[in-house]
This record gives sequence, C-alpha cells and structure tokens, in this order.
Amino acid sequence: MPRVEMTQPNPPEAVGPEMTEFDVDALIEPALLDAMAALDGRTPLLAGMIRYHLGYAGCDLRPLDARAVDRGKRLRPAVALLAAGAAGGDPRAAAPVAAALELLHNFTLIHDDVQDESLIRRHRPTVWNLWGVGQAINAGDALFAAAHLPLYHLASTGIPAQLGLHLLEAFDHMTIAIVEGQTLDLAFEARSDVSPSEYLEMIAGKTAAIVRFAAWAGALLSGADEAVASRWAEFGLALGLGFQVRDDLLGIWGEQEATGKAPADDVRRRKQSLPLLILRERLEGAEREELSRLFSAPNVDGVGVARVLTLLEREQVRQEVETVIAGYHDRAAAALIDAAQPGHNRSRDRLLALVERLSSRSG
Amino acid sequence: MPRVEMTQPNPPEAVGPEMTEFDVDALIEPALLDAMAALDGRTPLLAGMIRYHLGYAGCDLRPLDARAVDRGKRLRPAVALLAAGAAGGDPRAAAPVAAALELLHNFTLIHDDVQDESLIRRHRPTVWNLWGVGQAINAGDALFAAAHLPLYHLASTGIPAQLGLHLLEAFDHMTIAIVEGQTLDLAFEARSDVSPSEYLEMIAGKTAAIVRFAAWAGALLSGADEAVASRWAEFGLALGLGFQVRDDLLGIWGEQEATGKAPADDVRRRKQSLPLLILRERLEGAEREELSRLFSAPNVDGVGVARVLTLLEREQVRQEVETVIAGYHDRAAAALIDAAQPGHNRSRDRLLALVERLSSRSG
Repeated sequence: MPRVEMTQPNPPEAVGPEMTEFDVDALIEPALLDAMAALDGRTPLLAGMIRYHLGYAGCDLRPLDARAVDRGKRLRPAVALLAAGAAGGDPRAAAPVAAALELLHNFTLIHDDVQDESLIRRHRPTVWNLWGVGQAINAGDALFAAAHLPLYHLASTGIPAQLGLHLLEAFDHMTIAIVEGQTLDLAFEARSDVSPSEYLEMIAGKTAAIVRFAAWAGALLSGADEAVASRWAEFGLALGLGFQVRDDLLGIWGEQEATGKAPADDVRRRKQSLPLLILRERLEGAEREELSRLFSAPNVDGVGVARVLTLLEREQVRQEVETVIAGYHDRAAAALIDAAQPGHNRSRDRLLALVERLSSRSG
Repeated sequence: MPRVEMTQPNPPEAVGPEMTEFDVDALIEPALLDAMAALDGRTPLLAGMIRYHLGYAGCDLRPLDARAVDRGKRLRPAVALLAAGAAGGDPRAAAPVAAALELLHNFTLIHDDVQDESLIRRHRPTVWNLWGVGQAINAGDALFAAAHLPLYHLASTGIPAQLGLHLLEAFDHMTIAIVEGQTLDLAFEARSDVSPSEYLEMIAGKTAAIVRFAAWAGALLSGADEAVASRWAEFGLALGLGFQVRDDLLGIWGEQEATGKAPADDVRRRKQSLPLLILRERLEGAEREELSRLFSAPNVDGVGVARVLTLLEREQVRQEVETVIAGYHDRAAAALIDAAQPGHNRSRDRLLALVERLSSRSG
C-alpha cells in the first residue's frame, strides 16, 4: 500500500469516524450467527431451540426468514451502538458487545418464560411450552455461555485485552444484577407489602441494568474515559427505568390497538406493577383490604377491574406515574446531552428519539 | 533487597517450584468466598441459596461450618491444581481456575436437580425443593455468572491477559459441551434405542468435559505449551469418562455400605446407564421387549430387578463394563505419565492415585 494513503488527513467534515446511518440488525448479525454456530455440537436440539427462540428457525428447527418472524425490538444493541457513535467513536467497535447483550437478554427471556409459565412470546409458543422445562433451562444456560463469546473477539477489532477483560467482568456482574432483580420479582409475588421504592430497586436490576451496561460499554469502546462512561451509565439506567415504568403505565391505561393487550390487562392478571403499588400505599383500612382480597384470587373479574380503575382514578395514580416517567425522561436527556461528543449529532439524536418515546409511546 | 538474592540459583533439588503437599480446599477457599461475596446485592436470598447449596449456610441462610456439612468431593479443582503441579508449575497458579470449575460444577448441579426433580443432594434438601423451581433457576444462573469472576483475576497472579482470554473462551465452550450432554441426557429419557456409543458421547459432554478442561487449563497455567496441554486434556477426558462409567457400575453392583444406595438402585430407578444399554443391545426379540416393558413402568419392582440382574449376569455385562473402565484407566495413566514433567512426582502420584480409583473404588 503506497505510503501516501497512510498519511492522508481525516475527511474535511472533521467530526471523526461517526457512521451517520447504520442498521442495528445488520451490524450485529455476524456475531449472532457465529454464536449460534458455536452451539452446533453433539445435538441439533440445543442450537435448534435457541435458533427458534431468536427467530432464526421454526418449531421444526428449519431455518426461518427474518421477514416471517418477530426477532424483537433489539433496544439493547441499539443503545450500545448509538452510544459508541454519540460518544465520538465508530459504532462498529461496539458490535460485539451489542450482539452479546442481545444474546444475554434472550437467555433471560427463555428462563423468565419458564418462571412465569408464559405460553407465548413474540406471537409464538415459548421454548418450555414446546420442549419442556428441563430443555428450556438447558437452552437458556447454553445461550448465556454463548453470550460471552463475541466479547472474546473484541481484541480482533483493536480493543486492548485489558479493556476486554474489564468489560467481561462487568458483563457478569451486570448479569448478577439482572438475576437479583428476577429473584426479587419472584419473591414479591408472595408478598402484599411491596413498596414503590422496593419495586424500582427491583426493576433497576431486572430491566435497567442491561441498558445501563449497553450505554456504558458502548462509550468505553468508543474511547470515552471512565468519568464520561459513568455519565453514559446514568443515561442508560434512566432510559431503562423509564421504559419499564412506561410499560407498567401501558399495561393499565394502554389502548388495545397499540399494545396488543386487553385494556387494564395488568390489573386482570394481578400484576404488582408500579401503579398498583402506589395505589395500595395510598389506600387505608377497609379499601386496602378490599384491594388485597381482589388480588388474592387467580384472576380479577370485570367488576373487580372496574373497581380498581375507579380507585386508581380517584387517587390520581396515573398522574403520579407520569411524573415518575417524566423524571426519568429528564435525567436521561440531561445525561445524554452532557455525555455526547459534540458533532456526533446523528447518533445522539437517534438516542434522544428513544428518550422521547418514554413520554409519548403508546405501544 | 540486596542484589545477590536475585541472582541466587534454584535450590539444589532443582525440580522447580512444586508445592509438594497442599490442601485443595485451602487453596480455592479465597476465590470461592470472593465469588459468593459478589452475589451479595439487592437481596440476601440469591447469595443465600448459593451459600446453602455450596455448604456455607443452612436453610435458614445462617453460616454453616465446614465440619457440619458435606461440601462435595472437589474432584475438579483437585485435578486442575495437581495438573499444574505435575506439569512443572506452582499449583497456586491454577487456584482461580480450580475455584471457577467448582462454582461451575455446582451451577450445573442446581439446575440438574430441577431437571431430574431430585429432592436430596449431599444429604440435604435441594435448592428447588426448598425455594421452588423459579428461584433455583435464578440461583444456578447467578452462580454460572459468578463462576467466571475468578478467571478475571488471573492477571493479578502474573498470567498474561491473552492467556486469560483464551482460558475464558474455552471455559464457555466447555460449558456449552456440558449443556449439550445434559440436553442429550434428557432427550434419551424419551427413547428406548440409545446405543452405548451415543451414551458415551453424552457423558463426554455432561461429565468429562469439565475434568478435561481442569487438566488442560492447569497445565497451561503451569507454562505447558499447547501440545503438552493437549495430552493433559486427553488425561482429563479419560479420567472423567472412567469415573462416570465406574459410577454406572456401582449403581448396579455397588455394596450398599460403600455407596449409600440400595443394591441395584439404578435398575430400580430405570436409569439408562451403560450396563443397561449394553444389555439391551445384546438382547433380541421377546427378551428385548420384556426389558422395554420393565423399563416403561415408573419403578421396577423386586421381581423385575432380579430378572434384570440375571440377564446382566448371563450376558456378562459387568465384565464388559470393567473392560471399558480398564480402557479409560490405561488411557488416563499413559497420558499422565507422558504429559507430567519429570521430577514433579508428588502431584503426579496424587493424580495416579485418582486414576487407580477407577479400577478399585467401591463407593
């Protein structure tokens, strides 16, 4: 290669190597395919269950086209890639981490579906529903192992081995935080005295820890120092918490056309989400006991749902939940503006659009 | 420090830094305690379940003394430490890997107990038996994450980051092999045509892959090159396979005083272990159907057990199983003699004693 090519200056726009437009799916696809291939061993069933869950195979384990199936929103890889871009680096540097997070998230879903006895996920039967609890545990375990694999190849993209080890260690600590959240979530089911703050601590682990990691690791891989990366972590944590609380709101007041769920579905299913916990804290005496009675049956009937909605309205719980969401929105937006590298506006604006969805999304 | 000390020759015996005597439990204890401490977070239940399973806490989650409880044989860490010693290095270099393997093994046990619906493990109720399937899945998941943690601190013992990453990647591939074995094991339960060679392939993953890794990684951490480490892997694989087949033999012909199990317990529990698979392959026509009928009931009664034992005797299955074990014994011993570093005899002899137990152990 002629020497002159190696000493050429950066292109005139001088905003660094920001990839202004990129497709999240396309960037993580190679690492996802490699991880699935690593599961092809002594038995086609193991990799088959995982390909099925990820939307790459049907229940007959034959390959399935992306257009034929819902492979999920891929929010977590998007945050990792966009944080890398908005922090001033090349989003491609974060592709291995983005893929690892998507695999990790899906491992937790496979086990969650067992724990919650969920029959359907992304419009298809869950893994345990098709292959039983034992094999679904295996599928999740193997997918968790495989989620580490893309991270061992960070070095091949020029990342120092020490930084790779630092990210890997944080990856396992983050997974422990997710499992802590899941442990609390299951333990809460047997309790009728969970406070809103205990609940927020639970979702900080179960739901938000992985979004926090995505933003933090994306920034680090983009060359950010630990102080800037910490701001990115704050952004991710607020984004993750806001998304979950918005989900809770939509589970009660969402429109069926937008959410795909029946109105007040979370009330009917006796889900102890934030609105219900705020309501219970507000009620006293006979009304509190009435709520506990309603929530001790396997399902809440139509009359019960109407009663709970009336109490929620009277206590202005929706307004309080909107205030909580607005707080996360503002924290996320402030951390983002503060942490983003000036000039890397396209990635930053895509992240801002995600933040805005906290306040506006209806499904 | 005076310069002369730095240029002193090695001690006269010149066999290098072999620690001639060491206690496996003592060497891995700090890393085990660190990993358990990393699980102390949002909820005492998660770390508590894991401390209970590992024998560090009672079912009330209070601390438990080592003398009060069976913490397991710790075969896998012993192999890692002794391989490091016999390969010519300091066994302490392998302590993080040894601890990681003990944690990994225990994660698989927690999930296995769920899958097999086992009520008792090491004379105590299993985790799922006490806290339910959902929380036992969480305990296993978190323990698997925590099993990685000691490996991130190899660098602090002077191991190059690249070698650490190499071991970590192999650690997750090995875990996938274990889960493949477990997937096959569960799938075999629904089949009545499993061949002895399919069975050996299954236990090569489920049981032997981790012993193989222990020997291989111990040697690498001791400074062995990849060729020598491969010989150590052969040793570990043969040792692991031999131990499992010996277990199968004892499950049918073991003495109750030595095994703690009823005579012919595996026949009664319809376990498709190697002796039964060899017998089924030998039988034809009506006798083969008779065996299938006996094994289609939930338990085999006394008359059925006696009949199976008679058939095993007539077909000389025990002799064939002994031959299989002897083959693994010889392969393990030959690989060990070949791979061990001359002069490091004490570690090598402790490993040879493990190999000899393949042929002689009764419980």
